[in-house]
Formats: sequence, C-alpha cells, structure tokens
Amino acid sequence: MELSLLGCSPGVSRPFTMIVNFIAVLLLIQPSLPLGSGSMTRHFKWEVGYVFRSPDCVENLVMAINGQFPGPTIRAKAGETLHVELTNKLYTEGVVIHWHGIRQFGTPWADGTASISQCAINPGETFVYRFKVDKAGTYFYHGHYGMQRAAGLYGSLIVDVAEGEKEPFDYDGEFSLLLSDWWHKSVHEQEVGLSSVPFRWIGEPQSLLINGRGQYNCSLASGSAVASSNATTTGRGGPCRFLGHEECAPQILGVLPNRTYRLRLASAASLSSLNFAVTSHRLVVVEADGNYVQPFAVDDLDIYSGESYSVLLTTDQDPAANYFISAGVRGRQPNTTQALAILNYKPNPPFRPPPSPPPVTPRWDDYSRSRRFSLKVHALAGRSPKPPRKSDRQIILLNTQNTVHGLVKWSINNISLALPTTPYLASIKYQLKHAFDRAPPPERFPENYNITRPPPNPNSTVGSQVYRLRLNSTVDVVLQNANAMKGNVSEIHSWHLHGHDFWVLGYGEGRFTAAKDEGHFNLEDPPLKNTVVVYPYGWTAVRFAADNPGAWAFHCHVEPHLHMGMGVVFAEGVHRVRGIPREAIACGLTAGMKKAAAEDDAGN
Amino acid sequence: MELSLLGCSPGVSRPFTMIVNFIAVLLLIQPSLPLGSGSMTRHFKWEVGYVFRSPDCVENLVMAINGQFPGPTIRAKAGETLHVELTNKLYTEGVVIHWHGIRQFGTPWADGTASISQCAINPGETFVYRFKVDKAGTYFYHGHYGMQRAAGLYGSLIVDVAEGEKEPFDYDGEFSLLLSDWWHKSVHEQEVGLSSVPFRWIGEPQSLLINGRGQYNCSLASGSAVASSNATTTGRGGPCRFLGHEECAPQILGVLPNRTYRLRLASAASLSSLNFAVTSHRLVVVEADGNYVQPFAVDDLDIYSGESYSVLLTTDQDPAANYFISAGVRGRQPNTTQALAILNYKPNPPFRPPPSPPPVTPRWDDYSRSRRFSLKVHALAGRSPKPPRKSDRQIILLNTQNTVHGLVKWSINNISLALPTTPYLASIKYQLKHAFDRAPPPERFPENYNITRPPPNPNSTVGSQVYRLRLNSTVDVVLQNANAMKGNVSEIHSWHLHGHDFWVLGYGEGRFTAAKDEGHFNLEDPPLKNTVVVYPYGWTAVRFAADNPGAWAFHCHVEPHLHMGMGVVFAEGVHRVRGIPREAIACGLTAGMKKAAAEDDAGN
Repeated sequence: MELSLLGCSPGVSRPFTMIVNFIAVLLLIQPSLPLGSGSMTRHFKWEVGYVFRSPDCVENLVMAINGQFPGPTIRAKAGETLHVELTNKLYTEGVVIHWHGIRQFGTPWADGTASISQCAINPGETFVYRFKVDKAGTYFYHGHYGMQRAAGLYGSLIVDVAEGEKEPFDYDGEFSLLLSDWWHKSVHEQEVGLSSVPFRWIGEPQSLLINGRGQYNCSLASGSAVASSNATTTGRGGPCRFLGHEECAPQILGVLPNRTYRLRLASAASLSSLNFAVTSHRLVVVEADGNYVQPFAVDDLDIYSGESYSVLLTTDQDPAANYFISAGVRGRQPNTTQALAILNYKPNPPFRPPPSPPPVTPRWDDYSRSRRFSLKVHALAGRSPKPPRKSDRQIILLNTQNTVHGLVKWSINNISLALPTTPYLASIKYQLKHAFDRAPPPERFPENYNITRPPPNPNSTVGSQVYRLRLNSTVDVVLQNANAMKGNVSEIHSWHLHGHDFWVLGYGEGRFTAAKDEGHFNLEDPPLKNTVVVYPYGWTAVRFAADNPGAWAFHCHVEPHLHMGMGVVFAEGVHRVRGIPREAIACGLTAGMKKAAAEDDAGN
Repeated sequence: MELSLLGCSPGVSRPFTMIVNFIAVLLLIQPSLPLGSGSMTRHFKWEVGYVFRSPDCVENLVMAINGQFPGPTIRAKAGETLHVELTNKLYTEGVVIHWHGIRQFGTPWADGTASISQCAINPGETFVYRFKVDKAGTYFYHGHYGMQRAAGLYGSLIVDVAEGEKEPFDYDGEFSLLLSDWWHKSVHEQEVGLSSVPFRWIGEPQSLLINGRGQYNCSLASGSAVASSNATTTGRGGPCRFLGHEECAPQILGVLPNRTYRLRLASAASLSSLNFAVTSHRLVVVEADGNYVQPFAVDDLDIYSGESYSVLLTTDQDPAANYFISAGVRGRQPNTTQALAILNYKPNPPFRPPPSPPPVTPRWDDYSRSRRFSLKVHALAGRSPKPPRKSDRQIILLNTQNTVHGLVKWSINNISLALPTTPYLASIKYQLKHAFDRAPPPERFPENYNITRPPPNPNSTVGSQVYRLRLNSTVDVVLQNANAMKGNVSEIHSWHLHGHDFWVLGYGEGRFTAAKDEGHFNLEDPPLKNTVVVYPYGWTAVRFAADNPGAWAFHCHVEPHLHMGMGVVFAEGVHRVRGIPREAIACGLTAGMKKAAAEDDAGN
C-alpha cells in the first residue's frame, strides 16, 4: 500500500533512493537555512523563453525563466537591492516582469507593467530591473503583458527580515507554496477568444498547481484509504503512479514531528479563487501580503489571486502518517480537481499515501463563510502604521460588465481600460498630449444605478484615462460590485494596487452608502494589503497614502478580467520622478524622446 | 451526382443560389476588370491580428489582416506607390510585412524584414510601408518575423503593366492562386520545437491550401468518377459535403469555354515544394517571379516556396465537365493530401464534381524531372536585361546542417545566421560597432569538404556577419548543396534574395567547380528571378548587380530552415541611404539614436 503511488512494490529500494535524491536535489523547498550576510545588491541573470513542460502531466508550452517553471525563487533581506538582468528570448513576443507587492519607492519604472511603467522588452533585448525590497514578507513576481502570467511566467519572491531584526513569531522551518491554475489551450488562443465576437470564455482551468505541479489525468487522492465525498477531490483518471522525477509529481514537504513550520502561500492564479488546507492541521495566519497580522487559527483559508499569506503549521499529528495539502476552487462553480501536495512526516517515505482523504474544499458559493474569513484579518498591533483618520478624496469604482461593439468587456464606472502604446509613466512625465485620454475619469456612478440588475446601458466605452492623485494625499477607494450582463450573476474580483499597500477599511453587502457605511470603517487595526477581494453584490473600501511618485495600475488580478478592461490607473507626483532609463521608454510616442528625457532629467 | 458536394439533392434551388451569390461576392477571384485610372499612390489601412478560422475545415488561430485570411489582395500598376498603414493588433507579438519580389529601390527600410530592414512593429503601433512597385508581375507579401508567415500572414500582390503598356501575351481573364501549407500546431510550438534539445521537427503539414482553403477531414476527389491511384490524392475522410459558404470550401475558378486565362501562382509555403496541374489542360508558362519568360507548355509545373509563375490556360476541353486544379507535394516524401480547387466551365454548376480524377503529382524524388522543368525557364528575348558577361566577385555558399550546443541548425559556410536585435540597415548606416559580428563571413568552404557525406565537423558557429558588396558591382553566388546530418540525405532548398532579381546562370549536380562549370553558365537568356531552387547534392549559380543601397536578406525560403539559421545578409551602398523613418529603428542600439539619425540625414 505504502508505495502504490510509486508504481512498484514495497521493499524495492532503488526507486526509493531515487526519490530521496530527487527530493534533496530538485525540490528546493526544504526548510531554508538562514541567509549569510549577503551583499546589499543581489544579482540575477534571467532569460525568458518557452519550454515544453508537463505541469499537470500533459505536455504544453510553458513560459519559463532560465528553463525553470515556476521561475527561480528570489530570496533577499529587507533593505537589499535586487538587480535582475532580464533578457527576452521569446521569438516574437515582448515581455515584462512585475514584482508583486514590492512598492518600488523611487523606481516606478521597475514595476514591470507594460504600457504603464515601461515598454515591453523586445525579443533579444535586455532590461535591468533594479529596485529595493524594503519590507520583509511573502511576495511573488509575474508577467504583466497580455496574459503572459497565465502562460506560466511567475515565481516566488521572499524577503526576510533585515539582519538583526526579528519576525514577531517563531518557527523551525519554512516552505513556499506558489498556487496557480492551468489551461491546456494557449494564452494566445485565450486572448483571442476573449476579444472575439461571439465571445469565447476561457472556461475553468484544466488543473490547479502547487509550485507548478498538478495532476490532470490521475488522482493522488484515490490512493488514500477513505475516498472523499467531494466531487472536486477525485481526479478523472485512476490513481497516480509516480516515480518522483516527473515534472508533475506532487510537491513533498518533508517535516519533523512537533515542530512549527511557516508556509508561505501566494496565489498567481489566472482565474481561480482558492481555498488552502492541510488535513488535520490547524493553520495560524500571521502575515498577509507582506504585512504582519494579528495571529488567528483556522482550518483552512481563502486566498484570492494576487494575495499572499504566511501560516504557521505545527506538526502535532500522528507522525506515522503523511497528510494531504490541498488547494481547491471557491468563488466560481468548480470544474477542476483540487491541487494536492504531501506533508511528509519524516522518516515516513515521502510518497506514502496519506491515510486520510484530502481536505474537502468548502462550498464554492458560501460567501458568508468567505466574509467571515476576510473579517478575521487584522493588523498586528505595533508592527504597521495606522491609517489617517480621514481621507482627502473618495473614489467609488463600479465594477460592471458591458459590451463594446459587440465585445464583452469589464468596465469601471462604465469605462473599460484599454492600455495605450506609450507607457503612462513617460507620457505623464513628459506631458505628452496625445498618449492617452486626458479627461478625468468618473469618480462616481449614477445614484439610480441598480447594482442588483444587469447594466441598463450595455454599451460601455473603452478608455485610457488616469486618476491623477495629489502627492501625499490620502485616498479612499470603494470597490462596488454589481450584477454582470447575465441576470442574478455577480462575480468575485480581487483587486491589486501597484506601488502601495492599502488599509482594508471594510467590506459590505449591497450598495455602499457613505452616510451609513463610513461609520463602520475599521480605523483601529485594518490590515495593510496590496490585494483585496470584492464579493458578489458587495463593496470593499480601502484607504492609501498617495506617497509614491509614479503611475500605478489598480486592477482586478483575474487575468481574463484585466484583459477585458477591468482596471484603472492612478498617478501621483510624476513630475518628481527622475532617472527613467532610456530602455524603459523605447516605444510609442516616447521612442523618439529619449534624448529629451535625459535632458529634462538633467535640467530639473 | 452533380450536387453530391453540396450534400443536397439536385433541383433544390436555394443552396444553389446561395452558392452563386457566395461565389460572386466572396471569392474575389473572378476575372478582373481593367483598373481605372487610379492615382499614383494607393492607400491601404491594415490591422494584423489573430482570428479563429478553419482553413482546412479544422479550427485554428490564424494571423489575419483586417480579419481576412489570406490577407487582402493588392492590385496596382507598375510605377505606382503603395502606402500601407499597418497597425499591429496582436497582444504581445511584434510584426512586419515583407513585399516579396518588390525591390524597394530607394526605400530599403520598407522591405519588411525584422532585424534587417526595420524593428518589428510593437503591439498597438503603426508603421507605414510606402514604396514603389516598379515592375509588373505576380508577387505576394508575407510576415518576416519569427515564423509568422506560417501562421497565415500572407496575401497576393499583383502589379499590372503601366497604363499604355502591354503584356507580351494575351488572355481573356485571370485568377490569382496563392499556394501554401498548413499545420494544426501553433507556430510558437513549431519555433520552440525547432530550438529544443532534443530537436523536434515540425513534421509534414496537415494540409495544403489554395487561396487559404484546404480540406483535412474529407476529400473532394473521392466524389469523382474515377478514383486516383495516387496515395496522396484521396483525403482521410469521406467525400466533402460543402454548401459553399464554408471557410474551407474549395476555390472555384469560373471560366467560359474556348478562352484563355492567366493563372497567377505564388507559393507562400512554409516547407513544401509543390507541383501544380489542371486535369486535361496544358499550361503555358509566361512569367516567373515578376519577369517574362520564353513561353513553354507543360502538363504541370514545380513551384518552390517563394516562387511565382504566370501560366496561360486555354479552356479547350469538354465544356460539359468541371476539372480539378491540384497542388501536391514534391521534394519531400509527402504525407499531405494534395490541395484541390475546381475549374468550373460555366454554366456548369460550380460544385459539380469533375468526372476525371485530379492530376497525379509526379514522384516526389524524381529530381531529374524537376531539373528538366527548371531548365525550361528562359528569359523572354527583348523584355529583360542580359547579365554582364563577367562578375566582380564569386561567393560560394555551402548549405550544411550542423549542431550548435546540441541544437540542430542549418549553416552557410559553417555559420548559422542569428539575427541581431538592431536592424542591419541602421547599424551599418550609423556605423555601430557592436550591433553585429563585424568579421567578414567566409566566401568559400574547404577544398576537401565532401558534400556527399554528413558534415565532418558537426559543430557550427552562430553568427550575424554581413557580406558587404561594392555598390554596382556584379556578384556571383553559387549555392552548394550537401549532405545533411543524416547519411544519404540532402534536402531541397529554395533561396530568395531581397532587394534584387538575379539571373539564374545554371544548375549542376555534385560539387561546383569553377573551371569545369562556369563555361556552361547560360549568359544568353538566363531567367531573372528572385527565388531559385538548389537540388539535393547539387549547386545553383546566380548573378546579380549589387545596385540597390540597403541591407538585404538572402535565405532559404523554407520557414523552419530560416528559423534554424539558413540565410546570409548582403549589404551595399548603405552610406547612400537617406530617410530611414524613425519608427523603423526604435529598437536595439538604434533606439536611442533617432535624433542623431535625423541629424545625420540632414547633414549629409
């Protein structure tokens, strides 16, 4: 029984040795040693290119970095500088990489958002991302051009506390688990379908992945003693038979009994809202999006695309068994098998099937349960700044679905974002008149708009407007969800802000009303985050200090939603930005302006 | 019987009307009317983007222009200027378009070759191709970045004689037939496979297309009275059942009896060498690659990728029947059904199955037959310049296969072409030192090289060298074919020269020897062409006047071979080039040089 996953009988030592070697050499997620006293700058030389890979046991083109998928994990200490020399080895596609959660103070051109912070890097060319990681936490990086994140362009970015600093919790070891979802059809096909008349939705993912590993045609769980009753638990094929070296063999987390481990979770999912759990183990949440939170214990946690969490797990269960680690779909009617990894109590054989079935993912549409989890997240007292008591400006963003010339779009206050060819950072800095729509976008939506009904005006406009924010002002944004084009449908969205963290002041159901709802804002211990969920037919209010000169995307982190226009652009203090590298602006209207730009910088 | 292709019984008039309408409205290849007295400049506004299309009845992503595949046919008169405003509507890919056969005198930046004449056009950006079509003839255009031609980016370009001029032959009507081959796997996957270790060959095409139409899952021919004995004739499915509106319905050429039609053939094939024939009809060849040839009659003709021909067909057969038009594979062991179209003698129903089977494609490896056809092509006396009696320089280019770091490559004199990021035209013009390898590439290969054996040195080098030619000198190039990596294999190649026509002085078998072979060069009536075949283990000699300031690709027109490095670059008189548009050089080392470039032009 114990080796059924290996496809060979117990007592055969060679495959077992292979597995152990494999785990030691390849998995690279053994508890990490403390970092040595590294230099202040960490150098990386990366090449982005497609490779053939089988993330879920089905071969596909995957966008990789230095041949690795997911890309190499970056580990640094707070205060250090990262120097990533990125060469585009794709044949005809541009590329950029966004450092999700890193605020890029003083280096807004290194934010890695095509059309916003920089021009896409052309095939054959190299761009240097050089920026400081100023705050310890669990981050990740990913492509931010077209839907390249969904093609596999992502990896973990872990920032440890600075030398001499201490985390506000203890643990004996740690693991990073980067969660994602995976399609068998190419992102090119996905993109074209989303922009076709008639509309072609990408559908639910074929697989969910943990550190780039999933199983499409077989089930790890069907080997466990007790079959789960959850429909999404069992795979479509029979039991998986792995030798361990397979690209889609599950991630093994080797632990010792009676220790505490930090699991660093991040979701690079294109579409899926996920629920994470480990059979029989409680999880103590201690960090969210690179900020400490008041610790609280749960059996499972929801993680939306763009979010990250650290949870502490204590190995206090029967050490003779292994246990399933699971990520399953919530927030959309699931049609995808849960992703599984194995918590391997040493010295048990790593692939010994856990005797208990995988955790059952909570019902996908139990949003009350989801809200209860969101409301448990509070800032850890004394470890992060409190929000200003008042804001200088309140922007309300209606999340609607519309059609534009027959194309299905997502719109914000009835404008669907179409990115310009010239990056905003440069076109604002150099005051180009025709690079984007100069009219200020709306800050409200009509009083009589009924958020519980499909949009009365199905015709949206496409635009590239910018919300210009006064530097160092305090801005409130209320994300107002509403009914989509189809009756009785309101989708879940997870909004990510570049260049800033925000305080999550509150969540509510129905339409936001300042008079009624502002009084309930949490101004005492709201969590600082960079990504936040807005529930169906609900609203979410956030506050942030517009203290980072640059142009910054604020958008739904669901990849197809962003492709369909679900985002806005904020800009503040761009006149103060100095030193935009020439390479960042070699496109659009700024292509001919490099000299001017350099002179402008010198002259100011 | 007569409506079996329609899948409905005779006498049902509605489908028939639909078909007639369809033919009238959509096919766009009815005999063309004489052009009106157009302005000297013809304007086109094009957008390149992917669409879902079923070229061979199987749906796929296809690269289209203004939603059309193949792209719109351009028709102009000799001496006119084309002004094509090309906007890239792809999401992450650059694009360029090459005007195959147009010499671009004075406009080398409009040649549409990424990394050679210009930077790829970024997504969202627009580039204006403005150039003169100075010579009447049958041309086509296609993508020239990565393998985008194979993604479907091509269309016909027909240049009529100037007002008042006359062709040296008469005809009553004409049709353009653009031939190509088609794969179901994406060009991205093809590109990555070709650059993988282990090597993954693209395989034979799934279908051959005539004007973008083929049939993968059914056979037009199986409806004909006499089944063909040729294995490549019959499709894999049963008889095709078309109503006529299908994207993969065959091209119908509606003709009247006892007339003469000009068929303009061009091959945009990625891989396949093709043989073209029409059942029971002789073809009189009158034009090759935009140059008149001494008319000669054949039953079929070979057409290699990059070539074009005009043939005259007289409708002198039984007018009660329709006839098959066929394009089948030669030069490689075929694994692809021949493409079929229908020569429809009016007023027969267009889809009435031809009673005679399609032409049988000649044996793929009967190269003696192929050579005999090549040797029939002679310039038409008095209609094109004769070659200079002597050349100033002779460059011999050995066509070999090698490996470079385990990758399979094609090499020329042991150098596999790797295109630089900065376009040659600009980096030569502005004398950039580090844009490409400055060492002159070899003009010969070792005396003791045995072309009948696999390369003794399997390790090639990758390079970006340029053959610098003296302006207005006469250059001979001898293409020397050889054995590939595998024993007893020498592949067929078709070499295309940009910016020039060349005289085809001769073909030979075995190793070229100046002393022996030069005496047999045809200096009396060699055809002027822009593309020429080199047969397995043979050589082909061409001569051209280096009279066109610019940087010009000379390469195997087989798309995967070029991707694998099978090409060289010629440059002549680049210092004389004036007016390179800023948009053409916004990449690589010239991205920051636009101002300098403009000044340089002004100062000179």
